[in-house]
Amino acid sequence: MFENKGVTEIEELGEFGLIEHLTKNFKINHPFTIRGVGDDAAVLNFEGNKTLISTDLLLEGIHFDLAYTPLKHLGYKAIQVNLSDIYAMNGTPSQVTVSIGISSKFPLEAVEELYLGISIACEKYNIDLVGGDTSSSKQGLIISVTSIGYVDENKICYRNGAGEGDLICVSGDLGGAYIGLQLLEREKGIYLENPQIQPNLEGKDYIVERQLKPESRKDIIEVLRDIGVLPTSMIDVSDGLASEILHICKQSDKGCKLYEEKIPIDPMTYDTAREFGIDPTVCALNGGEDYELLFTIKQSDYEKIKNSADITIIGHITEKSAGCNLISKSEIVHEIKAQGWNTFKSKN
Amino acid sequence: MFENKGVTEIEELGEFGLIEHLTKNFKINHPFTIRGVGDDAAVLNFEGNKTLISTDLLLEGIHFDLAYTPLKHLGYKAIQVNLSDIYAMNGTPSQVTVSIGISSKFPLEAVEELYLGISIACEKYNIDLVGGDTSSSKQGLIISVTSIGYVDENKICYRNGAGEGDLICVSGDLGGAYIGLQLLEREKGIYLENPQIQPNLEGKDYIVERQLKPESRKDIIEVLRDIGVLPTSMIDVSDGLASEILHICKQSDKGCKLYEEKIPIDPMTYDTAREFGIDPTVCALNGGEDYELLFTIKQSDYEKIKNSADITIIGHITEKSAGCNLISKSEIVHEIKAQGWNTFKSKN
Repeated sequence: MFENKGVTEIEELGEFGLIEHLTKNFKINHPFTIRGVGDDAAVLNFEGNKTLISTDLLLEGIHFDLAYTPLKHLGYKAIQVNLSDIYAMNGTPSQVTVSIGISSKFPLEAVEELYLGISIACEKYNIDLVGGDTSSSKQGLIISVTSIGYVDENKICYRNGAGEGDLICVSGDLGGAYIGLQLLEREKGIYLENPQIQPNLEGKDYIVERQLKPESRKDIIEVLRDIGVLPTSMIDVSDGLASEILHICKQSDKGCKLYEEKIPIDPMTYDTAREFGIDPTVCALNGGEDYELLFTIKQSDYEKIKNSADITIIGHITEKSAGCNLISKSEIVHEIKAQGWNTFKSKN
Repeated sequence: MFENKGVTEIEELGEFGLIEHLTKNFKINHPFTIRGVGDDAAVLNFEGNKTLISTDLLLEGIHFDLAYTPLKHLGYKAIQVNLSDIYAMNGTPSQVTVSIGISSKFPLEAVEELYLGISIACEKYNIDLVGGDTSSSKQGLIISVTSIGYVDENKICYRNGAGEGDLICVSGDLGGAYIGLQLLEREKGIYLENPQIQPNLEGKDYIVERQLKPESRKDIIEVLRDIGVLPTSMIDVSDGLASEILHICKQSDKGCKLYEEKIPIDPMTYDTAREFGIDPTVCALNGGEDYELLFTIKQSDYEKIKNSADITIIGHITEKSAGCNLISKSEIVHEIKAQGWNTFKSKN
């Protein structure tokens, strides 16, 4: 799916030429951006607000496989992954810097595809690209994104604010990105064994898109503002529900009770997990990369939130000594353990 | 020089364990840091000032060679390179994020050495480490640093403010980092051919240090403040004097005249360049990685600056149509061309 549509060599442009070429169509739209690309540093104005900074590294062969990842989607995803962290603070992302390391043999048109995805994401979410670095890489494609945003000091949602009795909520549905990845990996395996067989992803658009082109949940932050609910804690689901709820409980010095039957799982995720012989709940707990928001709210906010279509209450916060538990559909109590995605562990 | 002093495997710690382990001794000192490592994003307070952001990517095999780069120095340098960009805006760096990609076979003790260098640099320059990302890498060591700082709006030094007649100044001396690199590369070559021969770097401390452990010029920014000189434009010398003065001239829409005899070159740089059969002026113009500050000042500030020991006036800004020229010691006029370090070009 990686098409070499052109032959322009990056060497011809050089580093500054490449930066200029790739960023020339990015407009500065945000009122808080004073100066973007083109000087030693970007200049931003956050007066009256607090500044938020988050950063992520995406590495070929670890975080993505170019065999089935279109570069446009990869650029889009690299931005979403970072915006998601700013939303998880209840903030508004406003700028990003993007650094890339690429083989000098990578055609310019391929890098342009990557930046097209970046620009589509930036435009859709009102983000200014304000800096970055490009380098030759001997080692496959490297993408490092830093996102910058702002938040009113009284509206910041840390991970450590969950209180006993608070309701645990999650946006959207979980496990789809993980099972989408399993599907892509399987089709890649079949293709490698027999290049005559075309990938069969028919009818699987939703889970493939969850993996390749996730959306950060700006809309959920807006809904919460509209209905007047300020979460007591919040985190984005990048490493699986289990890992994230444990972060909240650990940092808030609390325990939790989650109910398996409440965990939102899309029917396509459910059916495909079953096809693969994987428990769909395990996909939700340990799969990761869903980029949904997991947050806690005061019980008194229940009435405000109960009719929000895309928010599900999946449990509640307990005292620390009660531990972190999942109540299964058959009402068995399981201790929640983090088995989230760890790039340092050998994968199965 | 890369010593494997230990055998703790990073796999044992996992990603979160590794971040916690590496960052636990970093203290938050800066009054502008509200929250550092440990949430989805860092929270910073820049009220009353403008925020500066800069980012750099350092890749093994492209930007550094672990055969002769101690990891502690590499960590130190990774920070300096980024602080330098904030100083070049006449700003004060206050925070950094550091992301690393490392082989899972890299011993923990090696990563600790890297972070030791990072922490020494942070402490010395009063910088808080407020975030980052760690990942396994199949592709050698990857370091991505984003530096964040602040500046009074009226004190920002962009690249585009140079005016006709302004004096062109540079801090310290140039070309040392480049010739230090040549020396290290030569000794590595000799060692690889005959491992019995130990590297001979005796008496070459200064240029080796310029390459392996550069310092960003915080002191120059302080001197300029003390003597009441606000540069009309400024940039740091990361890609060589030629490349940097062309950035200033291009963005300011001006030309320049530099005088070869004025370019500050340390005697050890000069002598070693001669040993290698390289013109020392070429090292200064095209060598890069000196991390000195190149800036322009109004002629009326000459009296204030003339006695600053570590600042040299090397030329002046002209109208654009006069072009960008170097007047050689024999008074021949050469057009300045950028031949700075370009990672996308094959090196000689």
